[in-house]
Amino acid sequence: MSKKLKYGMVGGSLDAFIGEVHRKAAALDSKFSLVAGAFSSSPEKSKKTGEALGLDPSRVYGSYKEMIEKESELPEEERIDVVSIVTPNHVHFDPAKLALENGFHVIMDKPITFNSQEAKDLKGIVDETGRVLALTHTYTGYPMVKEAKEYVRNGKLGKLRKVYVEYPQGWLSLPLEEDGDKQASWRTDPSRSGAGGSIGDIGTHAANLAEYVTGLKITNICADLNTKVPGRQLDDDAAALLKFEDGVSGVLMVSQIAAGEENDIKVRVYGEKAGLEWKQSDQNTLLFKPLDGPAQIIRTGTGYVSDLAKANTRTPAGHPEGYLEAFANIYVAFHKAVTDHQSGEFKSADNYDFPDVVDGIRGMVFVDTMIESSKSETKWTPFKV
Amino acid sequence: MSKKLKYGMVGGSLDAFIGEVHRKAAALDSKFSLVAGAFSSSPEKSKKTGEALGLDPSRVYGSYKEMIEKESELPEEERIDVVSIVTPNHVHFDPAKLALENGFHVIMDKPITFNSQEAKDLKGIVDETGRVLALTHTYTGYPMVKEAKEYVRNGKLGKLRKVYVEYPQGWLSLPLEEDGDKQASWRTDPSRSGAGGSIGDIGTHAANLAEYVTGLKITNICADLNTKVPGRQLDDDAAALLKFEDGVSGVLMVSQIAAGEENDIKVRVYGEKAGLEWKQSDQNTLLFKPLDGPAQIIRTGTGYVSDLAKANTRTPAGHPEGYLEAFANIYVAFHKAVTDHQSGEFKSADNYDFPDVVDGIRGMVFVDTMIESSKSETKWTPFKV
Amino acid sequence: MSKKLKYGMVGGSLDAFIGEVHRKAAALDSKFSLVAGAFSSSPEKSKKTGEALGLDPSRVYGSYKEMIEKESELPEEERIDVVSIVTPNHVHFDPAKLALENGFHVIMDKPITFNSQEAKDLKGIVDETGRVLALTHTYTGYPMVKEAKEYVRNGKLGKLRKVYVEYPQGWLSLPLEEDGDKQASWRTDPSRSGAGGSIGDIGTHAANLAEYVTGLKITNICADLNTKVPGRQLDDDAAALLKFEDGVSGVLMVSQIAAGEENDIKVRVYGEKAGLEWKQSDQNTLLFKPLDGPAQIIRTGTGYVSDLAKANTRTPAGHPEGYLEAFANIYVAFHKAVTDHQSGEFKSADNYDFPDVVDGIRGMVFVDTMIESSKSETKWTPFKV
Amino acid sequence: MSKKLKYGMVGGSLDAFIGEVHRKAAALDSKFSLVAGAFSSSPEKSKKTGEALGLDPSRVYGSYKEMIEKESELPEEERIDVVSIVTPNHVHFDPAKLALENGFHVIMDKPITFNSQEAKDLKGIVDETGRVLALTHTYTGYPMVKEAKEYVRNGKLGKLRKVYVEYPQGWLSLPLEEDGDKQASWRTDPSRSGAGGSIGDIGTHAANLAEYVTGLKITNICADLNTKVPGRQLDDDAAALLKFEDGVSGVLMVSQIAAGEENDIKVRVYGEKAGLEWKQSDQNTLLFKPLDGPAQIIRTGTGYVSDLAKANTRTPAGHPEGYLEAFANIYVAFHKAVTDHQSGEFKSADNYDFPDVVDGIRGMVFVDTMIESSKSETKWTPFKV
Repeated sequence: MSKKLKYGMVGGSLDAFIGEVHRKAAALDSKFSLVAGAFSSSPEKSKKTGEALGLDPSRVYGSYKEMIEKESELPEEERIDVVSIVTPNHVHFDPAKLALENGFHVIMDKPITFNSQEAKDLKGIVDETGRVLALTHTYTGYPMVKEAKEYVRNGKLGKLRKVYVEYPQGWLSLPLEEDGDKQASWRTDPSRSGAGGSIGDIGTHAANLAEYVTGLKITNICADLNTKVPGRQLDDDAAALLKFEDGVSGVLMVSQIAAGEENDIKVRVYGEKAGLEWKQSDQNTLLFKPLDGPAQIIRTGTGYVSDLAKANTRTPAGHPEGYLEAFANIYVAFHKAVTDHQSGEFKSADNYDFPDVVDGIRGMVFVDTMIESSKSETKWTPFKV
Repeated sequence: MSKKLKYGMVGGSLDAFIGEVHRKAAALDSKFSLVAGAFSSSPEKSKKTGEALGLDPSRVYGSYKEMIEKESELPEEERIDVVSIVTPNHVHFDPAKLALENGFHVIMDKPITFNSQEAKDLKGIVDETGRVLALTHTYTGYPMVKEAKEYVRNGKLGKLRKVYVEYPQGWLSLPLEEDGDKQASWRTDPSRSGAGGSIGDIGTHAANLAEYVTGLKITNICADLNTKVPGRQLDDDAAALLKFEDGVSGVLMVSQIAAGEENDIKVRVYGEKAGLEWKQSDQNTLLFKPLDGPAQIIRTGTGYVSDLAKANTRTPAGHPEGYLEAFANIYVAFHKAVTDHQSGEFKSADNYDFPDVVDGIRGMVFVDTMIESSKSETKWTPFKV
Repeated sequence: MSKKLKYGMVGGSLDAFIGEVHRKAAALDSKFSLVAGAFSSSPEKSKKTGEALGLDPSRVYGSYKEMIEKESELPEEERIDVVSIVTPNHVHFDPAKLALENGFHVIMDKPITFNSQEAKDLKGIVDETGRVLALTHTYTGYPMVKEAKEYVRNGKLGKLRKVYVEYPQGWLSLPLEEDGDKQASWRTDPSRSGAGGSIGDIGTHAANLAEYVTGLKITNICADLNTKVPGRQLDDDAAALLKFEDGVSGVLMVSQIAAGEENDIKVRVYGEKAGLEWKQSDQNTLLFKPLDGPAQIIRTGTGYVSDLAKANTRTPAGHPEGYLEAFANIYVAFHKAVTDHQSGEFKSADNYDFPDVVDGIRGMVFVDTMIESSKSETKWTPFKV
Repeated sequence: MSKKLKYGMVGGSLDAFIGEVHRKAAALDSKFSLVAGAFSSSPEKSKKTGEALGLDPSRVYGSYKEMIEKESELPEEERIDVVSIVTPNHVHFDPAKLALENGFHVIMDKPITFNSQEAKDLKGIVDETGRVLALTHTYTGYPMVKEAKEYVRNGKLGKLRKVYVEYPQGWLSLPLEEDGDKQASWRTDPSRSGAGGSIGDIGTHAANLAEYVTGLKITNICADLNTKVPGRQLDDDAAALLKFEDGVSGVLMVSQIAAGEENDIKVRVYGEKAGLEWKQSDQNTLLFKPLDGPAQIIRTGTGYVSDLAKANTRTPAGHPEGYLEAFANIYVAFHKAVTDHQSGEFKSADNYDFPDVVDGIRGMVFVDTMIESSKSETKWTPFKV
């Protein structure tokens, strides 16, 4: 059987959002056990969270430093294998560095770091330590996103021509941060979120999704960033014209002030022979639109999809799988890499289907380039890592 | 914190479908640990499954009898709290009985038993032992199904008039059982499935969903059962005109030969003032259709839904929750009842939001009544428990 | 070019609904000119309607008798070719009879007559006079309904097994007839509507659609008719189990008290190899669902559809055609038959793609059988013409 | 009653597309009679078309010049009131000018002229002659587009923030013009289409729709034009970042190489309080998405929509109206203006709900600005009329 990995969490106290998502995603397939945590910068909150989660109090720590130090001293069969980092962006790099340097593998929320320099530095540490690092760009975990990638890779669209990617949300239409909303507060605060607002929070997802599905890199950006809610310090809306490799052009739209929209990240790709469309609001459907026949409704869990899609699916067609399952798919792929590492079979993250530190760097450079372009009077700004 | 319950599973070897669903549903919220199992009538298969799941080999048993006997002898803090039964229908009653009589709580797949007499007997045992029994009618676990129930209960539809419930599948369009397909084989075999084919497998879900949402009981049935695939022994298609309490009329349609359909259970309810519609293929949406204004798209995870819906939701709007999450909601409600039982606070299953033995009896009588009606030349057959 | 036919209308004063629909449908393709009318039993109303429509006042008549008599006396090249009958059901037979016997061709709204005897008598008159009679079962005019028929006919579904047809409306949820609503008043009045309420008004459409698409006749009915609005004299809700020829079973659901529903007639047909689905709310789409591959989105106006669908389409894919276009397709087919008649090429209505007097009879017998079955305690009532 | 107007058509021979659309749109409501035509630059083709349409051969002309000259000489009660121009773009200005100068009113297809200078000149002629000129930007004719405009105008969205407008087509994915496809040939030929390819053909629709719904003008454009099919002379794909008045930002996407897409023009508008969405593929639905409650499905033909929407609707909710009905709405509004003109009540086109010469100029300047911006290395190009 596959070994159950033990992990400790950094961040993710009870009033957080993404920490609980990570915990459920890790739990779903019974491949991870949460055994330790430094859930908050407040030791009191950390303790309460640990209690609520039923952890051994001796492994609920007051800080991530303490957690990594103490866990390192435990016997190998007892101590954690993995650190899961779910803090706001400004507390990504340090715990990731410390964990890696102490021999732990790391899975962390996006964007990878506070800025692109940190991301590049982190890659150095990953390379040096040889440990596994995964980044939870959830949307690439959906079976039908993987199927889309397969369709492109297998040439069913022919040479690509055009990409539309969009991620509209409406939840920041009001200045929630002024009312102390925790989720809104750190995301709109440059000291915790970094230089990007919506472009960091959701724009990195959109860019990552477009690159994942097409297999092409963005090479140039012409961006328009906006702050629509008065008094807000970071962008809450953005759009960009894109150039990809191979002469493919694209459009990216992200917004957190698209009133009434929930979370409907969507990608459309058009080639010489066909188009395809995937959106999170109908997550188990991939529309395939050939030039010469009816559009086809490709569905999760069917017999005709690719092995890659099947391997990322748990139930038969018509039993909808959702966000947590997509998230869990990244944990499963990470689990494989870590257990391979433990058995000496791991070579590089390239061989696994999860976003890694290289994707993380691209995300941070995406943020930088969007900002640079938006300030520039020149049309095109190169996307250079 | 809420105590993590230990459970043992009956059935659910690696090549089964619903066993793995139960395991993931139980795991998702970290409220249950799988620690024991009698996964197959073949001890060898059971052993392999236990190994793959990483169980202590000493708690992987060759039969459910052995499991219940041996677990009973373990110290209280070590032994299982709960037995999860995921075998084909003919192996539901005996393990449930034995488990209850040995003080274990039981969660089991539907239909509850092989026939209605067993179901009634099981109720007697539940009443005698005072243990908790939950039945996994998954579809009532969806937040928007619960919201539908709330809308009806709060009078937003006015007095009810009409119910349509349907559950079309196409996967039994071919005689898969002749090719040894495991799922098809037991479901079409009266010695394992019981007297009902499609009506037991999915018809009970449809009837349960209609009664759950409306809060009304079916009182009369006029059924037409069909076996469309030549040589098949049980019905693979059925429809019925229904009468409910309070003069509400209805239609029920279930089919496993609706070629090309996946699993789209759907319910529509109409009252004097409004209608509503929910379907699994768009599981996080409830359509509310008032007579005097635009239809409204009620969505999982939003701020405006009922507390009941919120309590059964894990992520914000637009982060789709699916089948496993709905399933897990039943496990969570069952967990509450069991821990209440352990702390002496449990009174009756009525106070919890999960399907219980009474629903199970209704399911079995539904099957009987559908068959009786289909054979009868008289139009209406009473649905009498 | 195809000759423009002159027609006179019976019924259809300015406050009516279906008369204006007929006028627009007839006008759309410039194949008919409205030149005469007896628009109301009130000569005053008729006159006003004629004025508003810009007719020559000398050809606006006080009664259909007058119209038919006077028009018959006009020179052939001047007088009407066709009578269009758009009155309530109790004024269908007499004007149709008179028109046919005076040599006019007739196109009329459904249901064809007040009762089935009238329908059968009308067939006798059609046969005797050899004139063309068309019945506007609109829904069979949609290109994608025709495509569905072609799919069945060409064997793409294999042998048929199951049919679901439904027609939910909500507009009679309130007793509008008590407030003098004209449309509601005659439809709920047995002296004007006939013995059927919802089953005549929309049930006949549903039954006709199912028979049209499958090419099979309904042979047995088990019906449940309801009057949900207190005080109403006719059914406003109905459902039935159906048997078709060739061992196909079906379900029919029609309601005018399905609160919040508009007019979403829908048909689903399942065969051994595939299923298909069409609904008016997405009228230019036919879903084709093969057992062995992805569902396909067949679309009006594309290059890959049948010649029959193409011949009933006016614009390229993505330029939505609607209800009036479907209606007009029946007028176009009727136009062909009439001009063929005038040039001596017409043999029988069977050779044209419009509903005729035989369909009309089936509609009336459908109403009778639904009522008889609903009153019967026996399950199945034969559908015998 | 409203007077039936007589019109003559320029262009629209039998193998054309948009001419027949104009004829059906004009016919639908019986407010126009086609009595004359110069249907082709080939007198032979013109003659055949006239024959097929049943016109008096004496009024089928060899050229538009001949038509306008001869019609002018007819007695007032006999001659045409209106000229309808449906030729390729390079034959728009001359016949429009001649018609207006001879006292005829003009309705014409978009884009209004071959270039912006012609458009401005045409405005001068409209102003001088005082005649009515309408431009068929079809999409603004849909009832739910008008409802969207009303929602914005009535403040239901609050101050606007963001606009997305898109118009993806796939039909020019292949070089159809090389195979002699008539529709593709003139649209990709700069000598007939003008300087814009996709931006003229469909981009002008998208820009017009966005300005119509929001009531705001585009002020700045940052465009990326592409020619994706090798050898093609004009753009077949374009995207632009937009600035509107009042600090609203936007994105425009049009493509004719979006393989598999039909014709799904779509607009989304977001304000401080709500968002809304309309798309042609679900043309009778307007989604209204308030921040503080469920999204609402606003539907054509219902009782709760605005008078403006109602006045542009022919049938009750659920009887789908489509493209031809939207087109006809422009003809109806134009009819009102012309008959008002004839009765001396017409003052200016501003008082009517149809696109006019001012919209036409904006369309041509849109094309110019898109091209200028695409060539520019500076990010923003002002949109200046």
